[in-house]
Amino acid sequence: MIEKAAKLRRMRRQMSRARIQHKADQASKVVKPVGPKVSPLAPVGGFPVLPPVEGVSIAAAAAGVRYRNRPDVMLAVMVPGTVMAGVTTRSSTRSAPVLDCEGKLAVAADGDAGAAIVVNSGNSNAFTGAGGIASVKAVTQAVADVTGVPEARVFSASTGVIGEALPHDRIVAVLQSLNADLKPGAFEPGARAIMTTDTYAKGCGREISLGGNTVRLAGIAKGSGMIAPDMGTMLVYIFTDARIDQPQLQTMLRGLTDTSFNAITVDSDTSTSDTLLVAATCKAGPQIMPDTADAEAFRQALSDVMTDLAQQVVRDGEGATKFLEVRVTGATSDADARKVAMSVANSPLVKTAVAGEDPNWGRVVMAVGKSGAAADRDKLSIWFGPHIVAENGWVSPEYREDLGATYMRQSELVLRIDLGLGDGATTVWTCDLTHDYISINADYRS
Amino acid sequence: MIEKAAKLRRMRRQMSRARIQHKADQASKVVKPVGPKVSPLAPVGGFPVLPPVEGVSIAAAAAGVRYRNRPDVMLAVMVPGTVMAGVTTRSSTRSAPVLDCEGKLAVAADGDAGAAIVVNSGNSNAFTGAGGIASVKAVTQAVADVTGVPEARVFSASTGVIGEALPHDRIVAVLQSLNADLKPGAFEPGARAIMTTDTYAKGCGREISLGGNTVRLAGIAKGSGMIAPDMGTMLVYIFTDARIDQPQLQTMLRGLTDTSFNAITVDSDTSTSDTLLVAATCKAGPQIMPDTADAEAFRQALSDVMTDLAQQVVRDGEGATKFLEVRVTGATSDADARKVAMSVANSPLVKTAVAGEDPNWGRVVMAVGKSGAAADRDKLSIWFGPHIVAENGWVSPEYREDLGATYMRQSELVLRIDLGLGDGATTVWTCDLTHDYISINADYRS
Repeated sequence: MIEKAAKLRRMRRQMSRARIQHKADQASKVVKPVGPKVSPLAPVGGFPVLPPVEGVSIAAAAAGVRYRNRPDVMLAVMVPGTVMAGVTTRSSTRSAPVLDCEGKLAVAADGDAGAAIVVNSGNSNAFTGAGGIASVKAVTQAVADVTGVPEARVFSASTGVIGEALPHDRIVAVLQSLNADLKPGAFEPGARAIMTTDTYAKGCGREISLGGNTVRLAGIAKGSGMIAPDMGTMLVYIFTDARIDQPQLQTMLRGLTDTSFNAITVDSDTSTSDTLLVAATCKAGPQIMPDTADAEAFRQALSDVMTDLAQQVVRDGEGATKFLEVRVTGATSDADARKVAMSVANSPLVKTAVAGEDPNWGRVVMAVGKSGAAADRDKLSIWFGPHIVAENGWVSPEYREDLGATYMRQSELVLRIDLGLGDGATTVWTCDLTHDYISINADYRS
Repeated sequence: MIEKAAKLRRMRRQMSRARIQHKADQASKVVKPVGPKVSPLAPVGGFPVLPPVEGVSIAAAAAGVRYRNRPDVMLAVMVPGTVMAGVTTRSSTRSAPVLDCEGKLAVAADGDAGAAIVVNSGNSNAFTGAGGIASVKAVTQAVADVTGVPEARVFSASTGVIGEALPHDRIVAVLQSLNADLKPGAFEPGARAIMTTDTYAKGCGREISLGGNTVRLAGIAKGSGMIAPDMGTMLVYIFTDARIDQPQLQTMLRGLTDTSFNAITVDSDTSTSDTLLVAATCKAGPQIMPDTADAEAFRQALSDVMTDLAQQVVRDGEGATKFLEVRVTGATSDADARKVAMSVANSPLVKTAVAGEDPNWGRVVMAVGKSGAAADRDKLSIWFGPHIVAENGWVSPEYREDLGATYMRQSELVLRIDLGLGDGATTVWTCDLTHDYISINADYRS
């Protein structure tokens, strides 16, 4: 009893401290609001029209987790028979909701039950000790009580400040009204509720025909930096009415993650909370069997949605003014191609050169050299868009500096590197590194 | 003959192009000169008084390689009997002078000959094709002709723009007068001649007593960013009159590199030209034998000089306003400790938080998590200076935000991380990431 009382006192002190820090952060953030200016790289036309996905209902509400007067909780409920697959961050300091999701995904093969996803923004519930686990349980149990979905099938995520106790009561308090508001196709309100420093809501949809039936995919995502100013995290939820079994969906998802969400980088930093879930309600089309034309059509549609959403996250990169595709070919392996591509895409000197519209191929050579991948200086070729810049170990005879300088003024850039050694290839996407990145991440207290 | 003529024409075209690019760069750089403002983290008192090292003579001259009206070539000549050891960049796109040095170091065991070091700033002779190798040969052969040191014992380095032909004739043209100007102890003029974007000349010396005799070490270094705006590179030259054999010196040097120059990072980028050479003239003290007290005393002095110069490079990091020591203990291995330390020291979010004087321990947790090293959230402890911030998977009950905020206002910071898992430990040094880094590296063309 004494121990329990001491623990309680300690928790109260921690809560109080968290509140103080929370208020301090709030106050400091008021000084220089990040502002609602939409990224210049945002897709034109705003949030896309997404196809209705049978068996999925979504609602959003303002719970005041951290933000005032804006939606910060999303609830999605899927019908019985829904198959869930997912991929989460590899961080060794991953958050309590991520750990909970991992456990549930490991036994997610049972699609007889329904499923639910609950997400809050404003607080990541990461590095919050034992209290963090308790908060996840409180929220997921409450969702189960309200929706009738078994607790083992309620997947949660939290995005926002690290190290503060999640005020889970505020989330629990809005679940009844969320449940009453559930609507098919409410993807845009859901996408808005999970935003933190995002400057626009991110969505992407596809419709395909399988066996004469229309099958739909609709995905939403948030993220604007691998981890944003204290409240980063990439969250992605893709819904489909396709009929597919869990192992097949999970395998497909994991394979496509490497060429979509694992192929982007804003600042090389990795969130403690990244979560990607796919919910297949199995309400439309024929059963998708492995290694069939249907499987390939579905895989391609899923790939399209994932790649589009991944690129949208980069386009909302903190301070970004340029969208850069880095294509690497001719490596001794795909893994080596990835090393080179990520070394270039993460190099502060390459990223600042892109920001400065400087066709600085010397920095690209440097980044190839430091990547750790097999490379031969004299077999290396580099293109800025259509212009070959370097070949055979020196500047190309075709290259003129003004060609490169003119090309670099575009906001969508392709940097191509051929190592001339083998068949390994990969493509990754990133953005430039600008003063605004520093301002967003360093200037709170200035 | 036709092929040769075509090759000649191609080379002329390339030279002409390089000249045009060179002029364009010069012009663009005039717009916003990096300026001579000395880093706020520079050691107080200016260039230190270095001890004379018997058998070493140095001279500097203005050859106009790229800069006008400032010394840009250093020549150091050592007496016969000098032992040379060295470590060079691991980059797979390393420069022609680095490749030449590597070849010469591989057969450097013969100390009967003298030795010479010739270094130019303004042009790195990196990614310059076959012409780059020819330039190195032209310079080192000319140094051999002028000084009488065998060409195989002439070590060269070049630091500056990547991808432009080195105007080696300009260097060759000043060698006669450099040779005539050689003076013992001219370390400061040497240190100034090899600067590029450095804001101060870097030197460090030690005197130790071995067997009743004074043995001296004097080192100079340049670097301000793993690679600076087109003209980065870390170059380090340490001279000693100690009597030591080559294999022992080389082994000692390689071991100490990991805890000095490989323990610093400014921007995670790696130069194509990094070179560290030690010249031991064997003119003072007893022969240093392995595993003796003398060897340990010398190793410690060499370690001091290397660590001091490494830290001076970080203190001149582009845009740096804070010097950050990251100490990691309790890792399962030293290698894991290094992964964690470098992940923290290279994290743009940690570095911008330091710039913003924000005790943002959540970002440290994130950087530990993404490092790939074994870590257990609930065993992790973090200190900002004397203040424990996080322990047992949450904010420490002792921590108050104002303690951290006050501490972060200092310009010299220590961030300590204990993983609570084992005995692995390491310490690395870095600086913050500021607007000036972006300005230096992106704003040329603005």
